[in-house]
Amino acid sequence: MRIAGKSYRTIWPVGDGRVGVIDQTRLPFEFATVELKTAEDAAHAIKTMIVRGAPLIGATAAYGIALAMRDDASDENLDHASDLLMETRPTAVNLRWALERMRGALRNRPRAERAALAWNEAAAICDEDVETCRRIGQHGLKIFRALAEEKSGGRLNVLTHCNAGWLACVDWGTALAPIYMAHDAGLPVHVWVDETRPRNQGASLTAFELGSHGVPHTIIADNAGGHYMRNGEVDVCIVGTDRVAANGDVANKIGTYLKALAARDNAVPFYVALPGSTIDWNTAQGGDIPIEERAADELTHMTGRLASGGIARVQITAPGSAAANPAFDVTPARLVTGLITERGTCAAGRDGLLSLYPEQKSKDPT
Amino acid sequence: MRIAGKSYRTIWPVGDGRVGVIDQTRLPFEFATVELKTAEDAAHAIKTMIVRGAPLIGATAAYGIALAMRDDASDENLDHASDLLMETRPTAVNLRWALERMRGALRNRPRAERAALAWNEAAAICDEDVETCRRIGQHGLKIFRALAEEKSGGRLNVLTHCNAGWLACVDWGTALAPIYMAHDAGLPVHVWVDETRPRNQGASLTAFELGSHGVPHTIIADNAGGHYMRNGEVDVCIVGTDRVAANGDVANKIGTYLKALAARDNAVPFYVALPGSTIDWNTAQGGDIPIEERAADELTHMTGRLASGGIARVQITAPGSAAANPAFDVTPARLVTGLITERGTCAAGRDGLLSLYPEQKSKDPT
Repeated sequence: MRIAGKSYRTIWPVGDGRVGVIDQTRLPFEFATVELKTAEDAAHAIKTMIVRGAPLIGATAAYGIALAMRDDASDENLDHASDLLMETRPTAVNLRWALERMRGALRNRPRAERAALAWNEAAAICDEDVETCRRIGQHGLKIFRALAEEKSGGRLNVLTHCNAGWLACVDWGTALAPIYMAHDAGLPVHVWVDETRPRNQGASLTAFELGSHGVPHTIIADNAGGHYMRNGEVDVCIVGTDRVAANGDVANKIGTYLKALAARDNAVPFYVALPGSTIDWNTAQGGDIPIEERAADELTHMTGRLASGGIARVQITAPGSAAANPAFDVTPARLVTGLITERGTCAAGRDGLLSLYPEQKSKDPT
Repeated sequence: MRIAGKSYRTIWPVGDGRVGVIDQTRLPFEFATVELKTAEDAAHAIKTMIVRGAPLIGATAAYGIALAMRDDASDENLDHASDLLMETRPTAVNLRWALERMRGALRNRPRAERAALAWNEAAAICDEDVETCRRIGQHGLKIFRALAEEKSGGRLNVLTHCNAGWLACVDWGTALAPIYMAHDAGLPVHVWVDETRPRNQGASLTAFELGSHGVPHTIIADNAGGHYMRNGEVDVCIVGTDRVAANGDVANKIGTYLKALAARDNAVPFYVALPGSTIDWNTAQGGDIPIEERAADELTHMTGRLASGGIARVQITAPGSAAANPAFDVTPARLVTGLITERGTCAAGRDGLLSLYPEQKSKDPT
């Protein structure tokens, strides 16, 4: 996607065996890039959230292995770099997947070939992620086009929650991919961007992404979406997801459920965009998904930019009051109009999912 | 209610014709009181939001007239003080009501009596507000007791949105009155306090109120309430309101509607507490209530306390992104379990409201 007219991915190879990434810790107030020269640099970037988002973390780890192989292609160094990178975010499923794929590609191969092989494999992981997101975007675009035709004129108002954009992936994003494609295709799209408390990924990252690419958008409090839906000012909702249960229940950023309820109450279609890898075939229903409780200070404190330009962190809650911070909620499948995947769009339910992923039928416990 | 073990109202007469108020601009980080000596002081307190909340603004204006009469009880000064106070918040219905009541009590009365009359009338306005809130609290307490009995053990989990507490009134509050009464009566009540973006009245004022009085509570993001309801961790929701339409539709702080939807989806009772003066018999339905659009910088900027103790304001959104800030939304009557008034609790609808306020029947256009 574009920043100030220039096309970017979130991670890219630089001439002589280095890797560039966007320093996401400085967004939305500053756009800066960082060069990773070693596996240690890659681990540091993941750990300090210079890069974030499951697909981008996986891609960064893959390039971390490639950087390690360029310096020392021994089995020992492959193990060392892999352990180092895995420790950065031990619960990240995509990180583990990327590292296992890299090790699989390099194991039993001559040392002299490993640097080049690793570099190519990391690039392939990135390209595949871009292709997956591009396909999600195309399938979503069909839906947006149909909604725009129904509306016959005027801008198409899309509401999104949190950040499921290209900054979390390598390019395009998941929920935002159809929005970028609609905008690039000349469809007059406008996005209501939920602030997404407590970490404000909407107000900072999604707004930055959309603004940088030139997509019209308006930041609103998480509280406001229901009001706009009641007033007929939302044509469609689209969000990403962290995990989809086998019955189509959707775990996503806290607050998603409330927007899905409002969408249903106002007959606004509510879509969830996801790569097939997000479907957890082993989890029967949303109630079985554990909900992470995060640190209370994400809610009690806020970081922002002072009028002087400096960055400061302030407490915003009554001192002494407890705070609780569940990171995700579960939106039941009954509230989801459709799941948009790289293979097409399906109903949110076991039958719908199996229609797109029939290879899972043999594993189906029922 | 209590602060650090001492009972307070939000406004009180001080010995020799002065009036004390809590400086609410310094909450939640500092508790300080201010003395008002003149009508100009009262106007300043309203204008700068040292006092806020419709009933408290009315009470402060009433005492402003009393302070003016003590200095100069002429008709000219009554007009002058009344105009001065009215200009502070020209759209505040309660402010106009209080000033008209004060003028009505003083007009055609001897100048020599006016200071004492005004002082008594202002005190009466305060006492009546306290009595109205106390009755709302008692009616709500009955509901809470019944829910606690149904639950047979464990704490009663109440969710509230925004601040409808004693800081907005003279004492007790509206939605918080039954909570204080339940707590004082030994009912094990715990309150989920919605942060209430963008002005954070929940995280700052409601949390401060409850904490100061010793009521167990937990601040949560506005996004989190639906999750807790799905998990069975909310027994009842109670909120205040800015205006109730004649059909029982409720205008309240933006985001109220989303909580009402979640309550309905999870069979959690959803109550609205209000003085009868909040019912707008001339507005047929919620859709007819104009929704105020407030300044975008309430969303884009946040004020809080630095680690150093100083107060700072920071930008928290992507620079250049537009923001929209509707202040209220409308919760349709069908989602409201009951309206708790000073006269008792009724169904949210014209019939329910008229059962409590039968004197309105003669004015009923239908």
